[in-house]
Amino acid sequence: MSRDPRYDLLFEPIRLGPVVARNRFFQVPHCNGMGYAMPQAHAAMREVKAEGGWAVVSTEECEIHPTGDVSPYVEARLWDDADIPALSLMCDKVHAHGSLAAIELAHNGPTASNLYSREVGLAPSHQPQSAGHPHQARMMSKRDIADFRGWHRAAALRAKRAGFDIVYVYAAHDLSLPMHFLQRRRNQRIDEYGGSLENRVRLLRELVEDTKDAVGDRCAVALRFATEEFLGDEGVSVDGEAREIVQMLADLPDLWDVNVSAWHNDSAPSRYSNEGSQEPFIDWVKKVTTKPVVGVGRFTSPDTMASQLSRGVLDMIGAARPSIADPFLPRKIEEGRIEDIRECIGCNICVSGDLTHTPIRCTQNPTMGEEWRKGWHPERIAPRRTDERVLIIGAGPAGLEAARALGQRGYDVHLAEATRELGGRVSREARLPGLQQWARVRDWRVGQIERMANVSVYRESSMGADDAIEFGAGHVVVATGCNWRRDGFGRSNSAIKGFGEFRAYTPDDLMDGEIPPGPVLLFDDDGYYYGSVLAEMLRAAGRDVTFVTPAESPAPWTANTLEFPHIQKRLREVGVEIVAAHNLVEFDNEQATLVDVWSGRKRIIDCASVLSITSRLPNDELFQNLAARESEWGPAGIKSVHLIGDALAPGAIVHAIYAGHRVARELDEIATGAPAFRRPIAGPTT
Amino acid sequence: MSRDPRYDLLFEPIRLGPVVARNRFFQVPHCNGMGYAMPQAHAAMREVKAEGGWAVVSTEECEIHPTGDVSPYVEARLWDDADIPALSLMCDKVHAHGSLAAIELAHNGPTASNLYSREVGLAPSHQPQSAGHPHQARMMSKRDIADFRGWHRAAALRAKRAGFDIVYVYAAHDLSLPMHFLQRRRNQRIDEYGGSLENRVRLLRELVEDTKDAVGDRCAVALRFATEEFLGDEGVSVDGEAREIVQMLADLPDLWDVNVSAWHNDSAPSRYSNEGSQEPFIDWVKKVTTKPVVGVGRFTSPDTMASQLSRGVLDMIGAARPSIADPFLPRKIEEGRIEDIRECIGCNICVSGDLTHTPIRCTQNPTMGEEWRKGWHPERIAPRRTDERVLIIGAGPAGLEAARALGQRGYDVHLAEATRELGGRVSREARLPGLQQWARVRDWRVGQIERMANVSVYRESSMGADDAIEFGAGHVVVATGCNWRRDGFGRSNSAIKGFGEFRAYTPDDLMDGEIPPGPVLLFDDDGYYYGSVLAEMLRAAGRDVTFVTPAESPAPWTANTLEFPHIQKRLREVGVEIVAAHNLVEFDNEQATLVDVWSGRKRIIDCASVLSITSRLPNDELFQNLAARESEWGPAGIKSVHLIGDALAPGAIVHAIYAGHRVARELDEIATGAPAFRRPIAGPTT
Repeated sequence: MSRDPRYDLLFEPIRLGPVVARNRFFQVPHCNGMGYAMPQAHAAMREVKAEGGWAVVSTEECEIHPTGDVSPYVEARLWDDADIPALSLMCDKVHAHGSLAAIELAHNGPTASNLYSREVGLAPSHQPQSAGHPHQARMMSKRDIADFRGWHRAAALRAKRAGFDIVYVYAAHDLSLPMHFLQRRRNQRIDEYGGSLENRVRLLRELVEDTKDAVGDRCAVALRFATEEFLGDEGVSVDGEAREIVQMLADLPDLWDVNVSAWHNDSAPSRYSNEGSQEPFIDWVKKVTTKPVVGVGRFTSPDTMASQLSRGVLDMIGAARPSIADPFLPRKIEEGRIEDIRECIGCNICVSGDLTHTPIRCTQNPTMGEEWRKGWHPERIAPRRTDERVLIIGAGPAGLEAARALGQRGYDVHLAEATRELGGRVSREARLPGLQQWARVRDWRVGQIERMANVSVYRESSMGADDAIEFGAGHVVVATGCNWRRDGFGRSNSAIKGFGEFRAYTPDDLMDGEIPPGPVLLFDDDGYYYGSVLAEMLRAAGRDVTFVTPAESPAPWTANTLEFPHIQKRLREVGVEIVAAHNLVEFDNEQATLVDVWSGRKRIIDCASVLSITSRLPNDELFQNLAARESEWGPAGIKSVHLIGDALAPGAIVHAIYAGHRVARELDEIATGAPAFRRPIAGPTT
Repeated sequence: MSRDPRYDLLFEPIRLGPVVARNRFFQVPHCNGMGYAMPQAHAAMREVKAEGGWAVVSTEECEIHPTGDVSPYVEARLWDDADIPALSLMCDKVHAHGSLAAIELAHNGPTASNLYSREVGLAPSHQPQSAGHPHQARMMSKRDIADFRGWHRAAALRAKRAGFDIVYVYAAHDLSLPMHFLQRRRNQRIDEYGGSLENRVRLLRELVEDTKDAVGDRCAVALRFATEEFLGDEGVSVDGEAREIVQMLADLPDLWDVNVSAWHNDSAPSRYSNEGSQEPFIDWVKKVTTKPVVGVGRFTSPDTMASQLSRGVLDMIGAARPSIADPFLPRKIEEGRIEDIRECIGCNICVSGDLTHTPIRCTQNPTMGEEWRKGWHPERIAPRRTDERVLIIGAGPAGLEAARALGQRGYDVHLAEATRELGGRVSREARLPGLQQWARVRDWRVGQIERMANVSVYRESSMGADDAIEFGAGHVVVATGCNWRRDGFGRSNSAIKGFGEFRAYTPDDLMDGEIPPGPVLLFDDDGYYYGSVLAEMLRAAGRDVTFVTPAESPAPWTANTLEFPHIQKRLREVGVEIVAAHNLVEFDNEQATLVDVWSGRKRIIDCASVLSITSRLPNDELFQNLAARESEWGPAGIKSVHLIGDALAPGAIVHAIYAGHRVARELDEIATGAPAFRRPIAGPTT
């Protein structure tokens, strides 16, 4: 296969100051929860992006000084020379594939916690630490500003020594000092760094000039700038000062990387934002500068990308999430394998790694974060070790991924699905409000499997233990999913009174097409997305909804996926009544009895039905039946039976995909007893 | 000085299975945010406890297997042999001082996140991950239980190889599998590990037996057991099954370590619990077993400790927080230096290290967590380098600690306080409801200073720049504190409309004795303890209070200090009306205008006054005046002027104490340009 000429423009080299990018694919900085703590894992993750064709591969934000310590977030770090080797490792691996390495220098000012360094934070004016920690950042003196410029310059020089080709000055996401100086709400200075826009831009200009002066001979200097904060006059905005700022600095940097702020707006989940949605906020930048402009928009369609370039919106296609879901996206376009692109679904599980301070994960790409520690590659997989046939029962996400990856390994795979539809929960959930793009999890895998001669798919093929044993496969993988519990068992209750006698609806019922009679009391003891999605669905069906949660607010875990603020707004927009910090203890078919989790006071709410979202039970009867007949496996030729995905332990879709991938990677591999992955060990070296 | 004979019984050795503890002081396991990631720092922190006289020094909980990965919490880890050296380091350092090293083996079951390992969690029955992560733990099969016992045994053997003398089986805090098996709400099994109490105790019994069998020849086996969960029949309780459980296992372990659950009840803040408050829940244990019993109660009074032993409540005095505030507590009792004991104030800042995944801090002990990386010792400090006199202006926590530590270094110190009272904010805040014990921050320092001939204290001695320059000290330290802002500036607003025209009360006004007229709208944009404390104070004064916060609930940061659940209950008990997720945008002296942070909808609340808790401004006029006259320093003999504590950047008391200590440590030291502390660097070793 070869490249579609329509996409040629995506592969034209482009000069960025003193360096040249080989094509127009630019992996913009993104966090990953590994950073300074796991340099090998971090470098290996970045390497596959370079191998996959991204002309530029960036770090996450990089702390330049202990006064800008963002712990417990695990980002890159260049406090002193001791930090250089870890980042050189990344540069070497990126360069090995002909790509450029970029680093995003950052001082987070009042958004840094300094919990590790214990240094006093810095800010344009005295102000509280922004994340809620009980200490303030102090107003920088002129000497502090000079010091800060010195630290930034020193970090740029270290970055150059480490091998980076592009050095960022960072003024985006409300996360760095030069941006904080721009903001009237944070900058109340009365000296030449505050007041007029020229004064508030001064530090940003100086940093770009300093960086060009320090490393501009060999490194391009990029400026990452948020054009819109959605805060009106309190922030930078397109209708306010953003244009003027770009005009003032127009050709000073070698490259503009433009986006919107805050992070939940920039990396908006697919529930609330579509491909290319930043265009109205950044399409004017190219008219103001002659320098190349890169921007993001969760781009996965090469047509959309080509359009961005041909219409003069962008010069380079920036991507964080699409490069996580498919590190080989550019190469697939180049090789004319468009249908092989594994498109980001916008679920933002990737973000949850950073926000839970653990390594990055991806729903679509189960190898993300596993490149070093498990040696998993997003495109390559070991060939099969044996000629055993494999029977997979259940074509939900776990079963589909297992079939796909085992098919890739060359196994003779037989995938049996009880229903007519493939995709299991993914198909069902993708029909819920806002989750349409999640169907990509199914579609990519079905598309891959359809082109594999060694994978057979059987729909409407329910299988019992007898069938599975008689099938005569060497390996059986059971991926039969789970169901929502109807008894109220969950984090807050071991059972809910009345649920035995009176019917409590579950998410399964709604996905089966049932709409409970209103008014509906929605009891969310789960805390992820289901409650908010189903509340929206019920409102669209005209039901009055009272959203009851024992948590302090609806959907608390979605703070980790940046959905939280969007969900809170939407629930109010659609008119959902919220009762937080209350547990549901009884339902008598007409009234629900709640208990305030703090005061213990009871509260009665009239309702015609209860939608109960508490926890799930695996559908593991088939596996248990097979396990009980282990003595028959040998005679039937069965070497192993695996239970995976929601049928083993219900989780999110990311867990099901990982389980399917893992069983495929490990099938027939020799168990060594060694740990399942490599990890850095901090030894007693001093 | 020598020991008071009343305390002799605290220093009698005691046999624990095959080992002997040299006295009755037992540092029970406590987390510290350093764990496996910072073995040198961890070992050095434990070492000072041993040096300070604790006969037993324990680790935090120690993960035994990747299925029990508690990331992002940073605890000890014994997944495989690679983890042994880090823990050996601690054992060696503890043994060097004649103490015993203990390790708390733990598998957190459904309370483990497994976010790092990606393994499926384990539980007695299928259930959601307890911290809100969107995946469930699975019901353990019999084979899983056998595997788990094998992992626990292997970890015990590794612990023995590492050098530990005491190995814990952990069934407390609702944080480990053997406890989860005890709980009817989590254990719904129908096999021999579920149902009857005997069945639910089975796993715990087996683990103790396994551990004794594996390492009992050389190591004592301790059982840490929570006797009370405060959950009625849903949990273990003294009035329920706790006694029976202890009876069933009475003499099986070599040592019982008993406490209450969950963690916020065990390590209850001093606002809500006093010294020795666990006694009613554990005083019966010694009557059931012949084995030694250790328990905790934030013990800092040697009389209370002696009473616990003489009355037969405990055999050993367990402590976590008191050993953090004063690692040398036992030695000070032994040496008859009772007045030197630095008593824990129960603020639980120590806990916030673990909960924010950063190294442990302590309000009272600024060296906590700094033993390795800065070489700071809780009792020793370098002698002065010069004969310069030091003038300290302001006797709040920062000034007092600077005076004390500089006095300890041998400097000629002059401490000037503008008011009649020493302690600054500490004295003021300690008069607020529930904060009485915080006065210990002042009292210990004043007590130390009073016995230092080289420290002079001047009360009612306000100083201006002229005074400071004329004083003729070589060094000037300005610690003049801060004030609450009256303009509304904070995280949510750059100003609040009407606050210029109409008076908004601040925490300072209330601490000055003013009580705003009711009904009071309390606007908390701060999120730490002030809002809840002042709401309680206003209610006690008979005012109606509406607590408005832009956060999702009052006092969100107190989740890090375990105060959060106590505060929520108390606010409801005293009848405070709570309006969360609303910002205050205007006050016209009769009405407050709120805006729902999610919907943007306005809401009007009638009120007679507003108490505004938003942010603070340093009182740094004196320093700024001195800075403007830098040319006069030399002629006046001034070598340096330092601005520290709230006067530099307002924070919590912990920050002020640290600032005072740091300036004392660093005064006259040669600035090398090197980083201020050592840190582990993860290098590209692979």
